[in-house]
Amino acid sequence: MKSITRLNAGRLFSTAVPRHSAQPFFADEPKAPSVQTAVPGPKNQAAAKELSEVFDTRSLNLLADYEKSIGNYIVDLDGNKYLDVYAQIASIPVGYNNPHLAAAVNTPEMVRAIIDRPALGNFPSADWSHILRTGLLAAAPKGLNQVFTALAGSDANELAYKAAFIYKRSQERGVGADFTEEELKSTMVNEGPGSPQMSILSFKSAFHGRLFGSLSTTRSKPIHKLDIPAFDWPAAPFPNLKYPLEEHAKENAEEEQRCLQETERLIKEWHNPVAAVIVEPIQSEGGDNHASPAFFQGLRDITKRTNVLFIVDEVQTGVGATGKFWAHEHWNLSTPPDMVTFSKKAQAAGFYYGNLALRPAQPYRQFNTWLGDPVRAILFRAIYEEVQNKNLVENTAITGEYLYKGLETLAQKYPNAIQNLRGKGQGTFIAWDSPNRDEFLAKAKTVGVNIGGSGATAVRLRPMLIFQKHHADILLEKLDKLLA
Amino acid sequence: MKSITRLNAGRLFSTAVPRHSAQPFFADEPKAPSVQTAVPGPKNQAAAKELSEVFDTRSLNLLADYEKSIGNYIVDLDGNKYLDVYAQIASIPVGYNNPHLAAAVNTPEMVRAIIDRPALGNFPSADWSHILRTGLLAAAPKGLNQVFTALAGSDANELAYKAAFIYKRSQERGVGADFTEEELKSTMVNEGPGSPQMSILSFKSAFHGRLFGSLSTTRSKPIHKLDIPAFDWPAAPFPNLKYPLEEHAKENAEEEQRCLQETERLIKEWHNPVAAVIVEPIQSEGGDNHASPAFFQGLRDITKRTNVLFIVDEVQTGVGATGKFWAHEHWNLSTPPDMVTFSKKAQAAGFYYGNLALRPAQPYRQFNTWLGDPVRAILFRAIYEEVQNKNLVENTAITGEYLYKGLETLAQKYPNAIQNLRGKGQGTFIAWDSPNRDEFLAKAKTVGVNIGGSGATAVRLRPMLIFQKHHADILLEKLDKLLA
Repeated sequence: MKSITRLNAGRLFSTAVPRHSAQPFFADEPKAPSVQTAVPGPKNQAAAKELSEVFDTRSLNLLADYEKSIGNYIVDLDGNKYLDVYAQIASIPVGYNNPHLAAAVNTPEMVRAIIDRPALGNFPSADWSHILRTGLLAAAPKGLNQVFTALAGSDANELAYKAAFIYKRSQERGVGADFTEEELKSTMVNEGPGSPQMSILSFKSAFHGRLFGSLSTTRSKPIHKLDIPAFDWPAAPFPNLKYPLEEHAKENAEEEQRCLQETERLIKEWHNPVAAVIVEPIQSEGGDNHASPAFFQGLRDITKRTNVLFIVDEVQTGVGATGKFWAHEHWNLSTPPDMVTFSKKAQAAGFYYGNLALRPAQPYRQFNTWLGDPVRAILFRAIYEEVQNKNLVENTAITGEYLYKGLETLAQKYPNAIQNLRGKGQGTFIAWDSPNRDEFLAKAKTVGVNIGGSGATAVRLRPMLIFQKHHADILLEKLDKLLA
Repeated sequence: MKSITRLNAGRLFSTAVPRHSAQPFFADEPKAPSVQTAVPGPKNQAAAKELSEVFDTRSLNLLADYEKSIGNYIVDLDGNKYLDVYAQIASIPVGYNNPHLAAAVNTPEMVRAIIDRPALGNFPSADWSHILRTGLLAAAPKGLNQVFTALAGSDANELAYKAAFIYKRSQERGVGADFTEEELKSTMVNEGPGSPQMSILSFKSAFHGRLFGSLSTTRSKPIHKLDIPAFDWPAAPFPNLKYPLEEHAKENAEEEQRCLQETERLIKEWHNPVAAVIVEPIQSEGGDNHASPAFFQGLRDITKRTNVLFIVDEVQTGVGATGKFWAHEHWNLSTPPDMVTFSKKAQAAGFYYGNLALRPAQPYRQFNTWLGDPVRAILFRAIYEEVQNKNLVENTAITGEYLYKGLETLAQKYPNAIQNLRGKGQGTFIAWDSPNRDEFLAKAKTVGVNIGGSGATAVRLRPMLIFQKHHADILLEKLDKLLA
């Protein structure tokens, strides 16, 4: 392949890394990106104008032709084909127009799931238990065997917060104790003790969603939060690690200790008692910030000591992208998290838990009309089958290692353009800082790569689980070209 | 028909009301409910037990066989067939296994919408504008020509609240003015001025959802709110009308005036400035509480005078059930609402608006990964076609009038069991208070009627839009039997 030849000619890559060892998962994928028009092209521009008359297009990236998109390639209205390492903000798991998913959803069962949508808390379908057991629960994190379904990451997190508040207050009240008259009355006017001044602790630069509760735990960027009322909840510092990690082991460990100590202090001293801590395995929207397994084990220990719940937000990290199905598997925790939230690549959303006391003792406390979506629970099952059948977690671990090595080499060649390369051993969940990030992302499109950013300066790679070494080669070659 | 014969024998119904004038919409519907087992039957009990091992079933009503359910009839696992006037908590619009919907979703376009789910704010499909224009926007309330899509009623309301806060703060700041350093900094720690102490005014006994922002405006029942932190937002009194309306015209008008005055006072005096008022055309979860068009026009006038936004929550009332497509059409408002939220029978969710200033001036302020769901936007279009082609709004108005008359007659026969009958002229959106409501609802199943409650004492009817006079006859006959 041209890309490899050129890179090898520059002796960038060790020949010890095997290449092209795997069969392509999508035989009909384009062999390479192709961009034939200006970006955006004329058809995209016309369509964007028409759409903007009725829909907010201020965040528009491109209008896609999903009929022509396939595997790792997204095709725009002008026929340009981009290698997609952004994947609908990290939410497409196994490729555009994946035939296994198409077959799984092209069924009378799916038609009924769409047109006869049940209120799952009241009138679930006969096969709801089976759909959960063969899908979402088959993929449950170790130690958790229950699921509460939701519609997206933001409400998945809020349902987990609600579970935490209800659990903590029922612990304080004493299991089985009735609500007091004062509680029943005060909650109707949004006051304590019925509506308690309690809190969820999150971390600086975290992202947990944009609804009012989840936004109160989001600390990614001002533009996400400005003008929206927020709860008076605490934010602990998240470790600010220095790269390369090997060269800063001691000070990074000290930084993590500092953050853990401050977290424990906040839990103990914050004026609105903390019911739960929520953390992302890798802070994603906030700039791809990592911490070590020791940090997360420390966090788990603190939550145990202080009797608060430990929620792991795997909305972006879950479902294979880090080289484990759930990113928190990298930590080898002494006890599982109390709740793990998911969405995005799962397509379905919700939270896992294990302790049945996290189900409120009374009905209609954690409740809403739809309580999730069977369409996406069925889809998740097909995704999970595809991941298992094609060993896509392993593929992502292997491809990620290969891609990371290639990026290390590029970072040596362009030390200013690729700073703080991170995500080693985390599958394809790789990022770096770039001084002209936004310009870089825009230019990437002109060479046929659809790539996203996170935080203020990070370029984040979020390829699908079907991203293979030959895709990595193309990406590396295009990056080389862009940076040259 | 037996039912009619029996009722007519008792001279309950005027022969002036035409009966059975319309062809059934579903030729294959059961002719009548049939219940062959105890409720729940043995298969339901076994399935409920299995499901409860992995999913919270505390609110379980029955497990349904959606393959066998058809039109107005839901079938349970034991083969019992219920006339369904609850319809998945008022969310099934045009009947189980509606063939028009089945055909509309059984397409390659729908398969792609499921398996290639776009991040609509970044990468919408080529036909997203067309889907909106021929579906959600074709059905938009008069005066509103923009839509912001969401996933369910609760987040639709929260997005409307966010739009209101952003709009109000940008008005205060001055259009085009930059954020201050203090705003940018303070919002990252959830403090003012960046995260302002502003509020949404809702009404007592309102229901607007269960996420943290929407729950802060929900005032239906303590069990919906207990133990969950809430914003310090105001609740105005909602009119407590006396029935029959004709006999209490003067005091009801006074009651509405009292509520309007208190609403205006709260808007002017509440310590956290009010950005918007949200109101349901008929308070649904809170007990089917009605108010007159004059009340809502008064509310509209107050919001204009006080410069706050007027949000109408049509999540439960929208899409035809009141005999108008949108319930607020009954009011003939002098100016349209600023925002109208929808979900449930729309299957899609979101809010309509007309003023482009409700789109934030900067990108990524009203944003999330999926921003709605093309699956449901396509489904909505098919629902809307079915509603238009079959004149289902008119059907609901006519059937509702017929049903209401029948219920009036029953209320005369059983004045203790049917109190405060309400919903006249509001299609099939009819309710009454019953002293032994929960027992009544449970018994209704044993005679083959699936029926729901609202508030503490109301029996609420929420049939689908395909509910016809012959279904009303069956319902009236079963109610008569139950009450006898």
